[in-house]
Amino acid sequence: MKKLINDAEHVVADSLRGVAAAHPGVQRVDLDNKIVYRAQPKQAGRVAVISGGGSGHEPLHSGYVGEGMLDAACCGEVFTSPVPDQMVAATKQVDNGAGVLQIVKNYTGDVMNFDMASELSQADGIDVESVIVNDDVAVEDSLYTAGRRGVGLTVLLEKIAGAAAEEGRDLASIKQLSEKVIATGRSYGCALTPCTVPAAGKPSFELADDEMELGIGIHGEPGRKRVKMGTAAQIAAELVDPVLADLDFTGPVIAMVNGMGATPLIELYLMYGEIEPLLAARGITVARNLVGNYITSLDMAGCSLTLLRADDDLVRLWDAPVNTPGLRWGI
Amino acid sequence: MKKLINDAEHVVADSLRGVAAAHPGVQRVDLDNKIVYRAQPKQAGRVAVISGGGSGHEPLHSGYVGEGMLDAACCGEVFTSPVPDQMVAATKQVDNGAGVLQIVKNYTGDVMNFDMASELSQADGIDVESVIVNDDVAVEDSLYTAGRRGVGLTVLLEKIAGAAAEEGRDLASIKQLSEKVIATGRSYGCALTPCTVPAAGKPSFELADDEMELGIGIHGEPGRKRVKMGTAAQIAAELVDPVLADLDFTGPVIAMVNGMGATPLIELYLMYGEIEPLLAARGITVARNLVGNYITSLDMAGCSLTLLRADDDLVRLWDAPVNTPGLRWGI
Repeated sequence: MKKLINDAEHVVADSLRGVAAAHPGVQRVDLDNKIVYRAQPKQAGRVAVISGGGSGHEPLHSGYVGEGMLDAACCGEVFTSPVPDQMVAATKQVDNGAGVLQIVKNYTGDVMNFDMASELSQADGIDVESVIVNDDVAVEDSLYTAGRRGVGLTVLLEKIAGAAAEEGRDLASIKQLSEKVIATGRSYGCALTPCTVPAAGKPSFELADDEMELGIGIHGEPGRKRVKMGTAAQIAAELVDPVLADLDFTGPVIAMVNGMGATPLIELYLMYGEIEPLLAARGITVARNLVGNYITSLDMAGCSLTLLRADDDLVRLWDAPVNTPGLRWGI
Repeated sequence: MKKLINDAEHVVADSLRGVAAAHPGVQRVDLDNKIVYRAQPKQAGRVAVISGGGSGHEPLHSGYVGEGMLDAACCGEVFTSPVPDQMVAATKQVDNGAGVLQIVKNYTGDVMNFDMASELSQADGIDVESVIVNDDVAVEDSLYTAGRRGVGLTVLLEKIAGAAAEEGRDLASIKQLSEKVIATGRSYGCALTPCTVPAAGKPSFELADDEMELGIGIHGEPGRKRVKMGTAAQIAAELVDPVLADLDFTGPVIAMVNGMGATPLIELYLMYGEIEPLLAARGITVARNLVGNYITSLDMAGCSLTLLRADDDLVRLWDAPVNTPGLRWGI
């Protein structure tokens, strides 16, 4: 294992020290509790949006804390859910009387711990709602998940829910909007290599030199099938087909071609160049797109495709100003 | 070799098709000549800033074309200089009577071809000036370079020169400013793994499982020394020391901790968390920073450090609005 780390146990804590040093104008890091907050004081009467999950998917979630997106991110150890105490602390800290929306990726530990945190916070009189992202069409149930896994759509939802909160919508409306996003977004990914969790010290699975895994999970959970490496054109079709088979996306979409961590940008753009015409041929127009590393799996090579049906309201929320280390525009 | 490509020969062309599809509002791609231009019409009387070089370092240079930064980027094949015809075409296209600044990284092919293009364009009556970035303190002379190699400082210079052009400074002033940036910026990098050029099909060099290369070039050119893998704290010192030994940076700086392509963001922040205190202990304060993949080497794992002395003028130009796929703020 070759990594720029001090020791496997302190990777998340050490990395958060770097985050704290890098973005003091945008973020404040509670290093003891491994929670990233906005640096700016809360606005009165605005709903707060929080998220969190295992680390190793950066910039998700910590990189999306800032104006126009998340109010806080709770960072678990690598590929390990944060604990309810973190979520309770974050919820108390960000609530401003207008309530808190929790954005949860569908992994058993995350769902259980956010659920417990929600109950504890509600007992303290805070209005808390949760939504569970489950956009990965690859498999029903998985290694750490009952039902579908939550993956790339989380990035899009955090942007859109954050923008809705910023413009002053109430908690019930933002929850409803988030459920619409979840109902109308889908993802599918592939891996060319495994990733190595620092504490494990060895690759999470093995792939032959000429093989790839389709439908991979963001922690390396098994996908749908293992196939021989194909061309980018073939792989693009393998990504597009399962997503479109699952939901009709005819019309405008927000599309993301996301890198798993170790795949260079030149290849991600190449994939976008293959995917976009496949979508166009099916009557799907890309209203907005992201191409790059937005939800990663440590040093895994590969990519994923996320599509979200885009109406005028969603596009307007997408375009709203955002100022986070991971997404930044209009500020 | 596992890559998301169709075939090794068409990687750059195929990737640029993706760029063209992804950013039509910001960039226009001349696919025949492999040149990326701004999508917006030229402003009268503004100096144009162009750059270019071998592909494989994305987002450099193509990702930095847009408002507030480059007017055009000439894309060579992977790790191969663009040809003078590309630079001549770009120069003609972007000139608006106020002249064109070429930002050239110090590699023999790039310098020779930009030089030829400059002469040809001047013969056509265009006012062309060039600056050569040579910030890598690792070695004097290298595999493709007489003198020091040009690396990370190029990103910072493209931002600063682009901002100076945007606010209407004249060609001589922008050249002088660029030379000041080059004189006061330094870089040093390390590799944990080699990279694989698609046309070669195999890693560019070999590194044992417990070894790293210090002072690596962005094409995998040999560095200063090969050492056993250390902790992040040790590696941080190995990066900081040669940079500070080469130039006194006491005072404010713009700092970049850059990923080589396959190193995850969690590790880059971890490195920033190690580097920033080392700088502080030497009287260096980071006025602005970048942490992420800004000048890469395909799928190489590793990172580099770039420091630039920052005065008020440079920080103001740094903060000026920029709207490119690779850097975006204030727009």
